[in-house]
Amino acid sequence: MSIQNETAAFLIIGNEILSGRTQDKNLSFLARELNAIGITLAECRIVRDLEQEIVLNIQQLSQTYEHVFTSGGIGPTHDDITTDSIGKAFGASVEQHPEALQALEQHYAGTDVDLNPARLKMANIPLGASLIDNPVSKAPGFKLGNVYVMAGVPRIFQAMVEQVLPDLKHGKPTSSVSVSAAVREGDVAEPLTKLQALFSDVDLGSYPYHRDGELGTSLVARSTDMEKLKLVETHLKEIVNNLGALPVRTRPEGKDGYEHKS
Amino acid sequence: MSIQNETAAFLIIGNEILSGRTQDKNLSFLARELNAIGITLAECRIVRDLEQEIVLNIQQLSQTYEHVFTSGGIGPTHDDITTDSIGKAFGASVEQHPEALQALEQHYAGTDVDLNPARLKMANIPLGASLIDNPVSKAPGFKLGNVYVMAGVPRIFQAMVEQVLPDLKHGKPTSSVSVSAAVREGDVAEPLTKLQALFSDVDLGSYPYHRDGELGTSLVARSTDMEKLKLVETHLKEIVNNLGALPVRTRPEGKDGYEHKS
Repeated sequence: MSIQNETAAFLIIGNEILSGRTQDKNLSFLARELNAIGITLAECRIVRDLEQEIVLNIQQLSQTYEHVFTSGGIGPTHDDITTDSIGKAFGASVEQHPEALQALEQHYAGTDVDLNPARLKMANIPLGASLIDNPVSKAPGFKLGNVYVMAGVPRIFQAMVEQVLPDLKHGKPTSSVSVSAAVREGDVAEPLTKLQALFSDVDLGSYPYHRDGELGTSLVARSTDMEKLKLVETHLKEIVNNLGALPVRTRPEGKDGYEHKS
Repeated sequence: MSIQNETAAFLIIGNEILSGRTQDKNLSFLARELNAIGITLAECRIVRDLEQEIVLNIQQLSQTYEHVFTSGGIGPTHDDITTDSIGKAFGASVEQHPEALQALEQHYAGTDVDLNPARLKMANIPLGASLIDNPVSKAPGFKLGNVYVMAGVPRIFQAMVEQVLPDLKHGKPTSSVSVSAAVREGDVAEPLTKLQALFSDVDLGSYPYHRDGELGTSLVARSTDMEKLKLVETHLKEIVNNLGALPVRTRPEGKDGYEHKS
């Protein structure tokens, strides 16, 4: 695990995730995008639509990590309380933002959709924040301090993430490689421990699987050091071979794997 | 949202979730099971395989909530550090547990699988903990204090959860109902706010969707009070009708919906 890369946390806001109604799809997207630009997603928290929970977690996470990303709770309804909560967390008053208003006015002009008070709420932004464009439905996200506040709808979340990535300080991208074989986790444990001791800056993980009747283990190596990663891949194949198995799949993982141009 | 029900937190442990490699499938399962027995899942955190992170979060969450559930990190490999970390969080030494050892010995007896030191590690349990059986691969989980430590593999996680549910204090089950229609979130916002004010102990949420080219909104009500939930459902249909739309789907949600026998 790289230690010089910047760290980030992700705060997912919404009762619908914690009730089991909705399966979050934003975490894995954000994780892979951050990996690819050399920022480590170090923690994720999921909280309900409760102001004091959001305020407390924003304060804790924004002090602990270089960046905080949030999803959810910036829509027009009564349960969308993220914007006000972020304002409170930073002691910033929330006011109508001229550019946000303009984006909404242009979006709804000439349609039969009324820019009613509920929709106007989406133009309210904490003072001092900069806007994050929403190319899909125009209600913007925003950045305040080191916190990026974004929509929960995956299509909009993704568009907002893509937009803020270029402004972040890029570190060494984390790449990964996976060697899967019909071996048991309990048999790879000892050689894997030895390999981990040899390569302390490569993050080695072992994940048993049961797929199409086949019992096996995926050995995954992650690192910002491509040369070491290639070396480790050779060792992983050796471990598998020494157990009398052949890798059934070997592949780069993560967003770009070995192909990453950094 | 019910306030008399007990609360729980879920701590997901594993680099593979935070790297985006693996999509967690345990949160929604746990949430629905807890809903059904009247325990509120109030928070979820996802942390890496780092001892100090696990210790800190276990201490925080076990002091904040009545119950804490964990997934991941109790296997045989070097990155499985959950058991030791939980021991540290409670100041309990971790030792070989006779019953856990017996379960593993019986499981591997007569097979060609060696009960090597890595596999024996899975018989190490903090002193004072009680075991949670693993009907799939026998390496047990355990309960220490108010923390339930379980495997990350969904099939094993689910079996362990089913096993501990009967021992928990059951509250009022949370049921939910959803009314979906081709209405815009910005148009339902105002009547929904009024409805929420009338029913403060029903949790109302609004979730826009874009499905098969159809733009719509799902209005979701959650409550432990079935009578109020039925009343709210009628109001939700009215809101939709007043906007000139018909509900395209109306359904109980959650594990048991209206059918729950409590």
